[in-house]
Amino acid sequence: MMDKPRVAIVGSGALGGYYGCHLARSGHDVHFLLRSDFEAVREAGFTIKKRDETFQIHPVQAYRKSEDIGPCDLVIIALKSTANADLEKLVAPLVGPGTLVLTLQNGMGNVERLSEFLPAPQVLGGLCFVCLNRTAPGVIENTLPGRIFIGEFFGSYRERTMDIVELFENAGLECYFSRSLDESLWRKLVWNIPFNGLAIAAGGIDTQQLLQSPHLTLLVRQLMEEVQEAARAHGHDIPPSFLQSQIDETRTMGPYKPSSLLDFLAERPVEVEAIFGEPLRRGQAKGIAMPHLETLTLLLKGLCKGPHQQPTQHKTRKHK
Amino acid sequence: MMDKPRVAIVGSGALGGYYGCHLARSGHDVHFLLRSDFEAVREAGFTIKKRDETFQIHPVQAYRKSEDIGPCDLVIIALKSTANADLEKLVAPLVGPGTLVLTLQNGMGNVERLSEFLPAPQVLGGLCFVCLNRTAPGVIENTLPGRIFIGEFFGSYRERTMDIVELFENAGLECYFSRSLDESLWRKLVWNIPFNGLAIAAGGIDTQQLLQSPHLTLLVRQLMEEVQEAARAHGHDIPPSFLQSQIDETRTMGPYKPSSLLDFLAERPVEVEAIFGEPLRRGQAKGIAMPHLETLTLLLKGLCKGPHQQPTQHKTRKHK
Repeated sequence: MMDKPRVAIVGSGALGGYYGCHLARSGHDVHFLLRSDFEAVREAGFTIKKRDETFQIHPVQAYRKSEDIGPCDLVIIALKSTANADLEKLVAPLVGPGTLVLTLQNGMGNVERLSEFLPAPQVLGGLCFVCLNRTAPGVIENTLPGRIFIGEFFGSYRERTMDIVELFENAGLECYFSRSLDESLWRKLVWNIPFNGLAIAAGGIDTQQLLQSPHLTLLVRQLMEEVQEAARAHGHDIPPSFLQSQIDETRTMGPYKPSSLLDFLAERPVEVEAIFGEPLRRGQAKGIAMPHLETLTLLLKGLCKGPHQQPTQHKTRKHK
Repeated sequence: MMDKPRVAIVGSGALGGYYGCHLARSGHDVHFLLRSDFEAVREAGFTIKKRDETFQIHPVQAYRKSEDIGPCDLVIIALKSTANADLEKLVAPLVGPGTLVLTLQNGMGNVERLSEFLPAPQVLGGLCFVCLNRTAPGVIENTLPGRIFIGEFFGSYRERTMDIVELFENAGLECYFSRSLDESLWRKLVWNIPFNGLAIAAGGIDTQQLLQSPHLTLLVRQLMEEVQEAARAHGHDIPPSFLQSQIDETRTMGPYKPSSLLDFLAERPVEVEAIFGEPLRRGQAKGIAMPHLETLTLLLKGLCKGPHQQPTQHKTRKHK
């Protein structure tokens, strides 16, 4: 990758704004595609509040349409997966033959979605473990310093993946190369599925309230074990100690509201397909029933704004 | 049973008040044990509003303490099962050697609870399919004409069961003898488990809203099939057509709020153990996993006021 790549951020909310501003601050040529916050950001730029520092990016190269940005070297997708139907329209104008497209979106199925209209070798995936809140238009607060794991689904290790890891590291971000992005995704779901899901389904409660109930804690554990089993069926061995550590660490986080809960409470669409529906389908495709996840997913589709896939034809249970 | 039995009603809310008033109207000697509505009922009696008639019982033989009623021929238990811890204290003073005790409570485990402190042959169970609402103290509205099924868990058919069926029939109530009360209980749960449970877990919605979601309708069906499978393991063959008829009939009921939802919305204890926890334990005891019901039960225990049994020691899933 060239010294100063041309970067586009598709979906400049909390996640896209946060990473884009770090790249811009480190001197890169970053173009932000914005929708609702376009005016505010063009006027006043972005403000990034971290625990130990606050910085501003102003002026911002802000755009309403991808066509006005044109082809870039690196395109970072930070759009909510519920808007994936618009992905091709938004991304295509940014892509040339040498462009790399990195999705940092939640859940499963996003790399595959991009590969429907892009050559697979141009697509990368990343996972962000980070706590971000857009507290006002253009104002992003970071409450938990994060990490990014970047990897490839298709083909083997490539030099250019390491280039992108380095790009993030040089921007002051903790970033790692993931030898198996698929495993990283399953590991992230060990947390996201029970905590994002039950925070909504148990009445709109935070992780602390959730873990105060022995019944819900048992359900957290059962959901984690289904994810573990599905991951195993996909070739990834997640040890039981990892499950327990996720519960223990969550207990130290205080009254944390997962992002899906925030979406739900604000009556925004919830990423049910990416975080719940797609892992469920992948588990079932390998013969792992995942009935607790199935129950939760159907409940969430009833509770939350979509888009959601319609249920497939119901097969009556076989009787013993 | 004697011509004019002495009857006690334990728990004179909507259910107890409704049936007790019918028995009183037909000339029986009915004694009502009351708590919150005692004053109102002693002042103004009971008012029973049915679709085609309204009648009053005034004065009412109203009591605050079972000791003041003393032994009866028939004791009808219409207490919420969440108060079952008080059952012995409330019932014991009403029981002599010849007393029959009939529980009309929701769900499973109530006959067994009575048999912990009463000789099994004195205990009968009944199932009420009826829509009742206590709209004000002492005022009970009946919106759906109901049926009662009365039967025995212990031993075989007895003459005295038919006497009690006749007692209800003569009071103008549709009442049947159930050859297998256990099967009737499972059949009732085919409706109660999905509709009472999901009305709460899917955000406090009525049955009409519930069946408008294809996802929740699928979950209704899956829960019904688990109940069907557990019933089969207990020797009761519930045909698939019964399941479908329950869904079809519910569609004709309009925006109906199940009793558990009303309890939940009023922040009263919800009968989670009787309607969900106990059937789950009975299914699992026969090797039927019932994972959808398990998920729902744990969620409801997290969502609703109890008392709830604590979760039993969690067994980590065996990996294939």
